[in-house]
Amino acid sequence: MSTSVGTGITHAAGFEAAGVRAGLKTSGNPDLALVVNRGPLQNAAVVFTSNRAQANPIIWSKQVILDGTVSAIVLNSGGANCFTGAEGFQTTHLTAEAVATALAVSAGDVLVCSTGLIGEQLDRAKLAAGVTAAVAALSADGGMDAANAIITTDTHAKTATRVGDGWSIGGMAKGAGMLAPGLATMLVVLTTDAVLESADLDRTLRVATRVSFDRLDSDGCMSTNDQVTLMASGASGVVPDHAAFQQALTDLCSDLATLLQQDAEGASHDITIDVINAATEDDAVEVGRSVARNNLFKAAVFGNDPNWGRVLAAIGTTAADFDPYLVDVTMNGVRVCSNGAPDRPRDDVDLSPRAMSLVIDLKNGQASATIRTNDLTHDYVHENSAYAS
Amino acid sequence: MSTSVGTGITHAAGFEAAGVRAGLKTSGNPDLALVVNRGPLQNAAVVFTSNRAQANPIIWSKQVILDGTVSAIVLNSGGANCFTGAEGFQTTHLTAEAVATALAVSAGDVLVCSTGLIGEQLDRAKLAAGVTAAVAALSADGGMDAANAIITTDTHAKTATRVGDGWSIGGMAKGAGMLAPGLATMLVVLTTDAVLESADLDRTLRVATRVSFDRLDSDGCMSTNDQVTLMASGASGVVPDHAAFQQALTDLCSDLATLLQQDAEGASHDITIDVINAATEDDAVEVGRSVARNNLFKAAVFGNDPNWGRVLAAIGTTAADFDPYLVDVTMNGVRVCSNGAPDRPRDDVDLSPRAMSLVIDLKNGQASATIRTNDLTHDYVHENSAYAS
Repeated sequence: MSTSVGTGITHAAGFEAAGVRAGLKTSGNPDLALVVNRGPLQNAAVVFTSNRAQANPIIWSKQVILDGTVSAIVLNSGGANCFTGAEGFQTTHLTAEAVATALAVSAGDVLVCSTGLIGEQLDRAKLAAGVTAAVAALSADGGMDAANAIITTDTHAKTATRVGDGWSIGGMAKGAGMLAPGLATMLVVLTTDAVLESADLDRTLRVATRVSFDRLDSDGCMSTNDQVTLMASGASGVVPDHAAFQQALTDLCSDLATLLQQDAEGASHDITIDVINAATEDDAVEVGRSVARNNLFKAAVFGNDPNWGRVLAAIGTTAADFDPYLVDVTMNGVRVCSNGAPDRPRDDVDLSPRAMSLVIDLKNGQASATIRTNDLTHDYVHENSAYAS
Repeated sequence: MSTSVGTGITHAAGFEAAGVRAGLKTSGNPDLALVVNRGPLQNAAVVFTSNRAQANPIIWSKQVILDGTVSAIVLNSGGANCFTGAEGFQTTHLTAEAVATALAVSAGDVLVCSTGLIGEQLDRAKLAAGVTAAVAALSADGGMDAANAIITTDTHAKTATRVGDGWSIGGMAKGAGMLAPGLATMLVVLTTDAVLESADLDRTLRVATRVSFDRLDSDGCMSTNDQVTLMASGASGVVPDHAAFQQALTDLCSDLATLLQQDAEGASHDITIDVINAATEDDAVEVGRSVARNNLFKAAVFGNDPNWGRVLAAIGTTAADFDPYLVDVTMNGVRVCSNGAPDRPRDDVDLSPRAMSLVIDLKNGQASATIRTNDLTHDYVHENSAYAS
């Protein structure tokens, strides 16, 4: 059993990582990350974006994960390699080959992730040189370097860790815009030294992402490149208690999802939408998401305006089972609407803090769900009208 | 047979209208409109918002239209009378009664429309005085006064007319935000002096709105108060050719929808999304709407950035039947993407004009649809973070 030494994805034993400058970003910032699983196990699971428009690394990685074995994952920022045709797919393939050759593993066990602008070819020579540099820089303490190399419009690297009874989990994430995952999220890599089969990893990963990344809906825009990977090295030699591992993984994913929300492009409010007393969990998610995607509500929150009418106008467009005229709406602890009619004065609501709580009581069952979103701000418009890098 | 004398809804013979200051708007601008059908026919049809959260005037008007007979329609700005409970419904009822008494008609033949902030009670005394003033001001040339009294954040009144073979159609509309009708639109009143039964009016109105107001999606936010009313006076004595009347009505609705689009809150681009060669018309609409609701694409257009990757990322989230890797995307005449890969350089696209054309060729059939939307701008965020009147 080895000890955890690194940050983020090198917190768990058995992993090495690196983050280098390959020159893909015009800024010259680090843009290529490599994570290697030194074993003894090389088990893994991945969830992918449910967008049908899928980037070349998604198409490639879906083949790699079929046998549940992953030796390494290489990630680049500075270009999404999406809608780049056959040339773009070959670039992804060549990147995996370069990693495989340098590490003496099979290219079929190398996952690839890309993020950045859609519709531009990546520079293969720069990628190849970057892979060489990353392999040379691999370190059991390279987690933070890797986390730094995958960010795009993120303002900082995002990592989180959990420690269990003899095992650890580490993670890193990138994401600031196009942040409405469906079955997956932005780029996330999770590592554990626990002894777990790939099928177990897949099961626990899906449970964890379903209530963390899948419930984050910053701007309603689903990416073409989302990928969440969980790799197990078995280096701890410990078979974890299932429930404890599940809880730790879910908590860690929620931590990362919160970091993504708090760093959402241009946002000035982090909004937690709790939909309670729904007929089903799906209903609660649909209702919460309809509010998370309502520009009028989101602009009102930016203006610190507790405009609860926009909440009801939004949820009225859903097919969820409830009566709009029985709904209660509470903002930052103030019930401004009860039974679909005005309750306490909207002036009682203080929306000046960055964190905002919105509770929607559907009064039609026992199910609930929490959706996390952000407000719609001038800075969001500015960043996304100027972003082309 | 009488002659058309007025503007907008008084262009057709047999109608009188007025627009007055009832004091519902804090600005003191006109805020109450009345349109009366002097016959000989009092036939009508209405389409309503498909939002399940429905304002009190919607609930009332749905009952009024059941028998296809409408004597008058009263419309107020300065308050939506939505989610205002039993008190709010009584206000709507009392408004209809006041109109009915003054005109010596049945309250059950008086439609009511309201627009403004959700969740606030309307002042009944001001409404009653406004109705009295409006009845006194009724005029066969009052169409423009009425059109002015229904606007909220609109920058100008919106009217349109068509003349057929012995008959006329007139219309007025209001709408600038919360502009994503589903089966209806903002407040629209259409009048004709043609001789048509209510069932005919209903049929032609639904055909016209389906391809005009329903295809306008400025900000993805569906209102609780949308109502499009078509009234026929029969005053021309002419039974119109069905096809000619349908075409004129559809064209007039398209004119009004274009006026709404061009006056959308804060917009700096009017975007026409033509989805062509789709398997079905529903597919074409779904694909177009997914782009119309994608904040990243809309912010890019604001920045004059022809970011076609965001178009593909948006349409990839739909269930429409097509292959993303066969799609062509053309912006302002420049094909920037063909077969899901880069074609002409994005720098060739000039997005500086207010009008923008986006053509999405799905290459999977013969159906098509046009969706109209706007960009996402600083002014949109500003207006909707500050709007509470």
